[in-house]
Amino acid sequence: MQIRPATEADHAAVLAIVAPTLKAGETYAMRRDFSDAETLDYWFGPTHEVFVAEDDGVILGTYYLMANQQGGGAHVANCGYMTAPAAQGKGIARAMCEHSLIRAKERGFRAMQFNHVVSTNGRAVALWQKLGFDIVGTLPLAFNHPVNGYVDSYVMFRALS
Amino acid sequence: MQIRPATEADHAAVLAIVAPTLKAGETYAMRRDFSDAETLDYWFGPTHEVFVAEDDGVILGTYYLMANQQGGGAHVANCGYMTAPAAQGKGIARAMCEHSLIRAKERGFRAMQFNHVVSTNGRAVALWQKLGFDIVGTLPLAFNHPVNGYVDSYVMFRALS
Repeated sequence: MQIRPATEADHAAVLAIVAPTLKAGETYAMRRDFSDAETLDYWFGPTHEVFVAEDDGVILGTYYLMANQQGGGAHVANCGYMTAPAAQGKGIARAMCEHSLIRAKERGFRAMQFNHVVSTNGRAVALWQKLGFDIVGTLPLAFNHPVNGYVDSYVMFRALS
Repeated sequence: MQIRPATEADHAAVLAIVAPTLKAGETYAMRRDFSDAETLDYWFGPTHEVFVAEDDGVILGTYYLMANQQGGGAHVANCGYMTAPAAQGKGIARAMCEHSLIRAKERGFRAMQFNHVVSTNGRAVALWQKLGFDIVGTLPLAFNHPVNGYVDSYVMFRALS
């Protein structure tokens, strides 16, 4: 598997991963009713550096890297990762996160922050913790989960050093 | 003093408050080099409901109200408040925050979150605490203060009930 910058040729494959994840509405605090064009506009937004995880010509995951804030907060990175449902449990998210930590450091970021990790997404929380992120904040009932109702979200953070 | 929705006629007065605050770079994690047009585009952005605090025809403060996230996070509000330097210490920020809590509830929000309260901004931190906000997270060295260097920021949160 390789992780490389996404190109326009990857749009359809990326859409096939991002659209159902947003539509499910269980992990991202984003609109669930995006059109395909809106989904691509979001994922490939002007501030996002987008990568794909590719295995034998098949896109198994995608992530974006951006500055979490501007000005005095511009040294902290933010990422969003999505793995194709069929490729889950194979270490794709871990590989993408490890890649993003290196890439963020290379770009001069000093830390990485996830603003809104839904507490019911236990697999993600555990993985980010394994990769050095701490839960630095708990947002009480900040996420309205389509199945579980109002649940907490976590703010997760790690320095890049 | 009254707090009312901002109109286009308020743009110059709002700019006179927002531009120097952003330029100082001590409290908002935003670019410090915005042009006037960029500053107005930011403050009056499409997702912002903007208000002004007016006393005897003079604009003493302004705030925006927005959803902090979309989708499953859209029930949590976010605000930014700015007071004219000459009007500080007169309760303008308190009045604007109290107004925003009522307005947010009226719009159906269930909670309010501030994502990035700079820890050196002690007056703001203390005021938000008085108004019912808790520090629910600490972002280590997440703000590069022009005078103090890297300092912590707080995530602050309160339910609206």
